[in-house]
Amino acid sequence: MSNRTLIRGGLVVTAAEETHADVLVEDGRVAALATSGSAAAEAWTAERVIDASGMYVIPGGVDGHTHMEMPFGGTYASDTFETGTRAAAWGGTTTIVDFVVQSVGHGLREGLDAWHAKAEGNCAIDYGFHMILSDVTEDTLKEMDLLVGEGVTSFKLFMAYPGVFYSDDGRILRAMQRAGENGGLTMVHAENGIAIDVLVEQALAAGRTDPRHHGEVRKALLEAEATHRAIQLARVAGDVPLYIVHVSAQEALAEIAAARDLGLPVHGETCPQYLFLSTDNLAEPDFEGAKYVCSTPLRPQEHQAALWRGLRTDDLQVVSTDHCPFCFSGQKELGRGDFSKIPNGMPGVEHRMDLLHQAVVDGHISRRRWIDLACAAPARMFGLYPRKGTIAPGADADLVIYDPHAEQVLSAATHHMNVDYSAYEGKRVTGRVRTVLSRGVPVLEDREYVGRAGHGVYVPRGLSTYGS
Amino acid sequence: MSNRTLIRGGLVVTAAEETHADVLVEDGRVAALATSGSAAAEAWTAERVIDASGMYVIPGGVDGHTHMEMPFGGTYASDTFETGTRAAAWGGTTTIVDFVVQSVGHGLREGLDAWHAKAEGNCAIDYGFHMILSDVTEDTLKEMDLLVGEGVTSFKLFMAYPGVFYSDDGRILRAMQRAGENGGLTMVHAENGIAIDVLVEQALAAGRTDPRHHGEVRKALLEAEATHRAIQLARVAGDVPLYIVHVSAQEALAEIAAARDLGLPVHGETCPQYLFLSTDNLAEPDFEGAKYVCSTPLRPQEHQAALWRGLRTDDLQVVSTDHCPFCFSGQKELGRGDFSKIPNGMPGVEHRMDLLHQAVVDGHISRRRWIDLACAAPARMFGLYPRKGTIAPGADADLVIYDPHAEQVLSAATHHMNVDYSAYEGKRVTGRVRTVLSRGVPVLEDREYVGRAGHGVYVPRGLSTYGS
Amino acid sequence: MSNRTLIRGGLVVTAAEETHADVLVEDGRVAALATSGSAAAEAWTAERVIDASGMYVIPGGVDGHTHMEMPFGGTYASDTFETGTRAAAWGGTTTIVDFVVQSVGHGLREGLDAWHAKAEGNCAIDYGFHMILSDVTEDTLKEMDLLVGEGVTSFKLFMAYPGVFYSDDGRILRAMQRAGENGGLTMVHAENGIAIDVLVEQALAAGRTDPRHHGEVRKALLEAEATHRAIQLARVAGDVPLYIVHVSAQEALAEIAAARDLGLPVHGETCPQYLFLSTDNLAEPDFEGAKYVCSTPLRPQEHQAALWRGLRTDDLQVVSTDHCPFCFSGQKELGRGDFSKIPNGMPGVEHRMDLLHQAVVDGHISRRRWIDLACAAPARMFGLYPRKGTIAPGADADLVIYDPHAEQVLSAATHHMNVDYSAYEGKRVTGRVRTVLSRGVPVLEDREYVGRAGHGVYVPRGLSTYGS
Amino acid sequence: MSNRTLIRGGLVVTAAEETHADVLVEDGRVAALATSGSAAAEAWTAERVIDASGMYVIPGGVDGHTHMEMPFGGTYASDTFETGTRAAAWGGTTTIVDFVVQSVGHGLREGLDAWHAKAEGNCAIDYGFHMILSDVTEDTLKEMDLLVGEGVTSFKLFMAYPGVFYSDDGRILRAMQRAGENGGLTMVHAENGIAIDVLVEQALAAGRTDPRHHGEVRKALLEAEATHRAIQLARVAGDVPLYIVHVSAQEALAEIAAARDLGLPVHGETCPQYLFLSTDNLAEPDFEGAKYVCSTPLRPQEHQAALWRGLRTDDLQVVSTDHCPFCFSGQKELGRGDFSKIPNGMPGVEHRMDLLHQAVVDGHISRRRWIDLACAAPARMFGLYPRKGTIAPGADADLVIYDPHAEQVLSAATHHMNVDYSAYEGKRVTGRVRTVLSRGVPVLEDREYVGRAGHGVYVPRGLSTYGS
Repeated sequence: MSNRTLIRGGLVVTAAEETHADVLVEDGRVAALATSGSAAAEAWTAERVIDASGMYVIPGGVDGHTHMEMPFGGTYASDTFETGTRAAAWGGTTTIVDFVVQSVGHGLREGLDAWHAKAEGNCAIDYGFHMILSDVTEDTLKEMDLLVGEGVTSFKLFMAYPGVFYSDDGRILRAMQRAGENGGLTMVHAENGIAIDVLVEQALAAGRTDPRHHGEVRKALLEAEATHRAIQLARVAGDVPLYIVHVSAQEALAEIAAARDLGLPVHGETCPQYLFLSTDNLAEPDFEGAKYVCSTPLRPQEHQAALWRGLRTDDLQVVSTDHCPFCFSGQKELGRGDFSKIPNGMPGVEHRMDLLHQAVVDGHISRRRWIDLACAAPARMFGLYPRKGTIAPGADADLVIYDPHAEQVLSAATHHMNVDYSAYEGKRVTGRVRTVLSRGVPVLEDREYVGRAGHGVYVPRGLSTYGS
Repeated sequence: MSNRTLIRGGLVVTAAEETHADVLVEDGRVAALATSGSAAAEAWTAERVIDASGMYVIPGGVDGHTHMEMPFGGTYASDTFETGTRAAAWGGTTTIVDFVVQSVGHGLREGLDAWHAKAEGNCAIDYGFHMILSDVTEDTLKEMDLLVGEGVTSFKLFMAYPGVFYSDDGRILRAMQRAGENGGLTMVHAENGIAIDVLVEQALAAGRTDPRHHGEVRKALLEAEATHRAIQLARVAGDVPLYIVHVSAQEALAEIAAARDLGLPVHGETCPQYLFLSTDNLAEPDFEGAKYVCSTPLRPQEHQAALWRGLRTDDLQVVSTDHCPFCFSGQKELGRGDFSKIPNGMPGVEHRMDLLHQAVVDGHISRRRWIDLACAAPARMFGLYPRKGTIAPGADADLVIYDPHAEQVLSAATHHMNVDYSAYEGKRVTGRVRTVLSRGVPVLEDREYVGRAGHGVYVPRGLSTYGS
Repeated sequence: MSNRTLIRGGLVVTAAEETHADVLVEDGRVAALATSGSAAAEAWTAERVIDASGMYVIPGGVDGHTHMEMPFGGTYASDTFETGTRAAAWGGTTTIVDFVVQSVGHGLREGLDAWHAKAEGNCAIDYGFHMILSDVTEDTLKEMDLLVGEGVTSFKLFMAYPGVFYSDDGRILRAMQRAGENGGLTMVHAENGIAIDVLVEQALAAGRTDPRHHGEVRKALLEAEATHRAIQLARVAGDVPLYIVHVSAQEALAEIAAARDLGLPVHGETCPQYLFLSTDNLAEPDFEGAKYVCSTPLRPQEHQAALWRGLRTDDLQVVSTDHCPFCFSGQKELGRGDFSKIPNGMPGVEHRMDLLHQAVVDGHISRRRWIDLACAAPARMFGLYPRKGTIAPGADADLVIYDPHAEQVLSAATHHMNVDYSAYEGKRVTGRVRTVLSRGVPVLEDREYVGRAGHGVYVPRGLSTYGS
Repeated sequence: MSNRTLIRGGLVVTAAEETHADVLVEDGRVAALATSGSAAAEAWTAERVIDASGMYVIPGGVDGHTHMEMPFGGTYASDTFETGTRAAAWGGTTTIVDFVVQSVGHGLREGLDAWHAKAEGNCAIDYGFHMILSDVTEDTLKEMDLLVGEGVTSFKLFMAYPGVFYSDDGRILRAMQRAGENGGLTMVHAENGIAIDVLVEQALAAGRTDPRHHGEVRKALLEAEATHRAIQLARVAGDVPLYIVHVSAQEALAEIAAARDLGLPVHGETCPQYLFLSTDNLAEPDFEGAKYVCSTPLRPQEHQAALWRGLRTDDLQVVSTDHCPFCFSGQKELGRGDFSKIPNGMPGVEHRMDLLHQAVVDGHISRRRWIDLACAAPARMFGLYPRKGTIAPGADADLVIYDPHAEQVLSAATHHMNVDYSAYEGKRVTGRVRTVLSRGVPVLEDREYVGRAGHGVYVPRGLSTYGS
C-alpha cells in the first residue's frame, strides 16, 4: 500500500461522465474511483492527499500533433523536446505524439532513431511517435510493418510540399494499402501542393509577397479537393481508416462529413488556431502576419463557425495543436519579401486545454466534449487508450487538477514555450491548470513546476481503437 | 457499512470504457470501482459477493419506448406493468419509460393519474412516463409545464392515426414551442397519416386486405416526408430538440442525418424489429404476417443495412422496443380480412439487450456502442442520466451480469412476456443475462427470478441531457 | 394569297435560335421564315410589311399565372379581363392562363362557366384557364376528366389558406392520382398554411400587425417544407408531374433542385417580384409595405441570387406574374392594423417581358433564356406549344417587335393596369415593346393601341408537353 | 435562283421544334422553312426536290470526339480521315471534331499541321479540330492563343496516361487559366492515372491479365475523383468552362451534377458504348473482351440507368463517339496476356445517330433530345452553332432524311468503318439514314453513297456558345 495518492472532492470529468468522486492512485495508475463521502471513499488513506474541492479532475491532455525541433526550410522549430514537453505540462498536456521525419532517400529506421535520440531523457511527460513518409518505396513499405511492431502505428503522407514531403497519389495509395494490412493509421496533410505551387509562383511574380498571400494562394478549394482525393484513395485501398490533419476549411470539413455519412472510417482533426484566429491575423501589418503562417492556412472568420459545428456533430473528432514554433525574430523573418520562405508553423502546445475550456465557457462545446476532443479521442485514435485519455481503474494516473474559475491572460511574457511571441497575446481566458500528475508523479504542483527532463518515457502505441 | 454488494472480476462495459474492475455497491448505488486485484479492491468486503469472472458487468438496460396495457383499436396490449416489467428484467432491462395516453377531450393529468394507478405497486423494475398529447389546447399546453415539474419531461405527438392520436401541424408547432419554453423533449411518430389513410381506403376497396398491404400502404416516402416536416416544424419552433420514434425507412433516416449534419438537435430511435425483420415477415402466409404488424411498418430487407449504418454513424442514437404486444389469437385476428383492423404492435421488451448483443457478435456494432444504444443514450435522452444507464460512482446499482458466451433460442415457449407468439421464434442468439440487480437488489439471480411486483418505483425524470 | 404580313429584317429570337430572318404570316399563322436577303425572302410580297430592322422579333409572351377579377378577402382583383389583357398586350404578352376558382361546395363546372362569362368578349389577347380545386370530392375528381377534355388541363391545389382554398394531404394525393390518369398537370401553392396560421395568430396577439410581419410569419422553411411534401405526394401518386407556383425561398428551390436531380418531373415557377423586390419593400413605412403583400411573400435580398441561379440551371423553368392587383386605396388599406387582412397580390402582367429583358441586359440570363422562360417554357408546360411560345412554321402569329435599346421608366402614371400604384415605381429599364400581333392581327402598332376587347379567344389547351 | 434544293413534306425535327415544314436550300445553306402546303411553300420551285413524306428531316450529326489515324501504343487507329468520315456520313453525321495530338517536346503548331495534312482533301464531310495538350509550357500556353484564332478553340488535358498524355494538376491549372483568358474550352479526360497505374502493375503482377481486368483497375471511384479534381481546378482557375469527356461512371456523373447545381459551367459527355455496353462485354471469353477496351472503361450495367437519367436531367449534354477503332486482328491482339497493352479505343462514328434514335424508340429520351444531344449541343459546345447542328435560315444545309421505321442489324459485315469487328454485332435497331446532304450537296442518296473525299472542308470554330 505504498505510493498512494488520493485526490479528494473534485468533479471528475471524462469524455463519458461527470462524477463527484475521489480518485485513488496506486503505483502510477488509477486504482479506484469512489463516490466522495461514501464509506468506501472515507476508508481510503494515502501518502499524498490532494484537495480538489471546487476543481475539476480531468485526464491529462493528449496532443496528437507536435513537431519538436522539426527541421523546416533550413531552420528548426524552436522548442526542443525538453522545452516543448515542459510547456505542454504547464498547460495540462501529459502525452504528446510527435512526428518523426523520414528524409527522401533514407529509411524510416534512420528517422526514428534520430527522433528517439532527440527525445530520450529530455521529456517532462510521456511521448509517442508518428512517422512521416517522405519516400514510399518497396523498402520503406516493408519498414512500415516493423514500425507498427515498435509502437509507431500511424503514418503521415503529404499531398503538399512537392520536392520535400510530397507523395504522389500512387505512393499514397501504396502506403494506404500497406497500412490496410499492418493495421496502421494513415494520416494525410490534404492540400493540393502541385496546384498551390503554381499560385505561389504567380503571386510572387506579381509582387504579392506579404504574409497574407500565404492564405490566399493556399485556397480552401484546394484543401477540399485534396481531402476528397485522400478519401477516395482510402476507399480504393480497401476502405482503410484515414485521419485528415489540421482541417481548416469548411469545404474540406464538408468532404469529411459526406464520407462519414456513408459510414466510412474517415476522421478529422482541427487545431485551436483555426478556431480562434483567422486571415485577419495573417493580414496584420509590419510583417506581423508572419506569426500566423502555417499550413493549412488560417481561413476567413466564417470558417470558424463551421469548425465548431463540426466538433459538435463529431465530423471532427480531435483537436491537436500542430505545435511547430518559429521565433519571429530570425526565423519568421526569413520570409520578408517572400511569404513562401516564412517557416510554416505556430506555437500552441501549452494553450490547447485552456482554449478549449474557454470554448466550454463560450458555449461552443460541452464539458465532456472538451475532454473527449483533447484527451479521450486522440488517445483512442492513436492507440493509447485506455492507458491515456481517461480516468478509470487501470489507466495511467495522468491527472490534471483544473481550476475552472481562474482567469489568465495569454502572453509571450508568461508562457513557457521557447518562442518569442504568442499567437494569442493578451487574450483573456477563464480556467487554468493547477496541478498535474504524470503516472502519479507530480509535474506541476499548485502552479509550481516540479517536473524533470527524463521523467517522460516513450510510449509504444497500439493500433487505433477509435470506433471500436 | 451494512448493505454492501461486491461484484468481482468482471469486465465492466459502459458506453465509454471497458475496464477489468470490481464494482462496490453501497445502499443501492454504485459506490466505487477499483482495478480487479489492486490493493484497493482487495481491501473491500461485502455482505454479498458476486463472482463475475468471464462475464460482462453492464448497466441495466433502459427501454425508452413501451406500451404496457395500452388501449388500441378496442383491445389492450397484453402485457400489464407486472408481466411486462418482469419480462423486461429477464432480459436485462431495469428501467422502462412507458407512454401515458391523453384521450381527446381529457386532460393530461387524468391520463397520468390513470397510468400511475396501473403501474404503482406492480412493477419489478423502475419506470418513468412520457406523455402522449392527443389534444393540444391552451389548457393542455399549460398542463405540460406541470408535468415537466413532476418528471414527465417528454411529449409525443402523432402525425399518423387521424381521429385518434393525430395532431395537425399547427398543434404540433404549438406543442413544440411550449416544449421549447419548459425544456421538454418533443417526440414524434412521423408518418403522414392523412395520406396513408387514403391509400388504406383504396387498398381495402381493391381487395388488398392481407397483412402485407399494411406495409405497402404505409410507404417509406410518407415516413420520410413526415420526418422532414417534423424537423422543419422544430426549426420554426426555435430549433427545439426533436426525437423521432421508431425510424424504419432509410429515407427517413436520411432526413435525420441531413438535419444532424446541420447541427440541429434532431435524434432518432429505431427498434430491433426493424433491424432483424422485414416485409418478408409481413408476407408470411395464413395471416401469420399479422404478428409483425406495427407502425411504422417493417420495411424491405435493404433498409436494415441503412439502419445499422445509422447506428454506427450516430445518426440514430437509441434502440428501444416499442413493446406493444397483442396475442395472435383473439387480438391480431381482429384484422382478418381487413389489415387496418389488426392491432398495431409487437412484443419485444425482453429481447432487446440480447438482440443487440448478437449485433455485436455479428460485427454490426461495437460492445461499447451496444451499451450506449441500449442504456446510456436513452438515459441521457430522457433525463435519467447518470442515475441510470452507466456504472459510475453515484449511479443506481442497476447492474447486469451478462454471459457473452451462453447460447439461447428465442421462443414463445420460453419467453416471459404475456403474449402467445414470438416475433423471433427459433432464432438462436449468443449471449444471455445471468443476474440482474435493481438499485442493488437482486431481481434475477443465476437465471432464477427473485424479484417482486412493487420493487420498481416511479422515477421522476429530469430534462434531457443528451448532447451536453 | 390574301391576308399576308411580312416582317422584314429583324433578329428573330426564340428559345432555340437567333436568326436574321424575315417572317411571313399567312392567315394568322407563321407560314415561313427565310434568311433576310435570300432569294426566297426577296421573292415574298405581302399586304402589310413591317420593318423590324434593329429590332428583335420574338414570340408573344405567355403568362401562365394571372388572376383577373379574382375574389379575395371580400374584394376583387382590380383588373378585369378587359383591362388586364389590354395591359398584358402593352407589355408584349399575347396569351394568359387565368385561374378559375372552384368554391367549396360547388362544382368545377360552375366555376368554369363563371370564368368563361367573365372573359368572353372582353379580352384583347388569347386566354386559357387553369382550375383551382378548393373541394376535392368524388364528384369533383370526375369533373377533372371532363375539364381536361375541354382544354382545362391543369389543376391547382393549395397547401395554404385553411378554410378557403386549402386541401389536406389526402385530398391533394387524390387529385394527383386522378391527374396521373387523365394527364392533367398538378400545380401547388406550397406553403404550410396550418403552421403559418398559428404564427399569424401569435404575431397579431403580440401586436406585430405591420405589413412586414406578413413576410416574417410566412417563413421560408414553411415554403420549403410544403414544397418537399408536395414532391413526396407526387411521387406516392405515381411520379406524376408537379408544378410549384411562385417559388420565392431559396430553400424551396433547393427541394425542387434535389427532386430534379433524381429525374423526377418536378417544375418550378418564379415571378418578377421575387427577382427584383425583397422584404425591404415590405418594410416600407406608412403602410406602403402593403403594396408588396403577396403569398408566397417577398424574401430577404439574398434569395434573389439563388432564384437567378435557379433560372440559369433550369431548376426553375417558368417566370409568370401571379398578376393579382389590388388598389392601395380602399383595398390594400383593408389590412391597416392587421396585416392578415391585406388582400394578397400584386400587379405585374404588363412588366414581365421588360423586366426579364432587363435581366438580359444585367447579365442574369441569356437572350434565348429570356424567351424560353417567358414564352416557350410556359407554352410547353401548359399544352399550348407549338401554337404559342415560338416562331416557327405553323405557329400562331403572336409576334412582338421589340426594341432592345429603348429606355422607359415604370410608373403608375404610365402603366395600363387598373391599379393605383406600381410595384416598380421609378424603375428605369432598357427595352420596350413596339408592335404586337395576335394571330397576325395588330394589337399594338408602334406603341399605339389598336386592339379590341373580344379579339382574344379562349384557347383549349392540350396536355403538357414539357419534357417531351 | 440557281442551285436550289427543296425538301418536301417531312417532319423537321430540331432540338427545339418539331414542324411539318418544307425546307428550301439555296447555295448550300438553309434559306427558308415554310409550313408544308402553305401558299408560301407551294410557290417554291427548285432544281432538286426531295420527297421526305413519312420521314424526319434532321440536322446532320455533329460528332465532337473522334480520333482518326490516332497513334496509340505503337499502332494507329484503323480509320483514316477518308474511311472514317465516309462511315460517319453513312450514319448521318456531317461534322466531326477530331483531336490533334501535341507530342511531348513538340509545339502545338507542329501537331496541328500534321493533322491538317492528314485530313485535307480526304474527308467526305466537314471537320474541325480540338488540340490535345501533352506538354504545357510557357511556349505552348502562348500557342494556345494562336490556335484559338485559327478556329481550334478547345484543349484537352489528360489526368490519365502518365508518361504519354498526362499533365499534372499544376499544368492543368495553368492551361485552364490561359483558356480563361483566350476563351478556349478546357476538355479533360478524368481518371486518376497515377493511382490506376499502381493498380495495373499490381493486377499484372498477380496474373490478372485478361481484358476484364482493364475494367477492374480503372475504378469508378478514380474516375469520380479525377472529375471532382478537374472541377475544383476549374474553379480555382476562375470558374472557367469545363467539359468532361466520355463520362462512364455514375459517381463521376454525380460530381458533374453537383457542380451544375452550383451553377458552375461544367459539362459532361458520354458515348453510346457506355449506354449500351457493360463490363459483361469486357468479360467475353477468348480475349473477345479486348474489343471493348477503351478508357474510361465500360462499367457494370447499373451505371447505364444513371447515364440515361443524366442525359434527361441535362447533367450530361453531349453524346459523342470517342471513335478510335483498332482491328481485333493484329491490333487488339497486342494485349494478349497483358491487358495494359491492348490499344484503347472502339469504333462507333457510324452508329451514334441510330443508337440514339433507338433510345427514342426505347423511351429513354425524347425525339428533340436526340437531336439536341447529337447535333445542337455539340455544335454549341464547340463553337459551330448555328452553322451546324440545327435547321434554320442561314444554317449550313447539312441535312439528313431519316426513316424512323426502317429496321437494320448492325454488323461488321455491313458497316463502313475500317475495322474488322462491330461492338454491336447483331444488334437490331429501328431507324436508318436515307439521304444525307452536306452543305446542300448529296453525300448519301437513298442509301447510295455519292460523296467524295475532299468535299469536306476544315471548319474553323468560334468560341463555345453553350449556355448563352
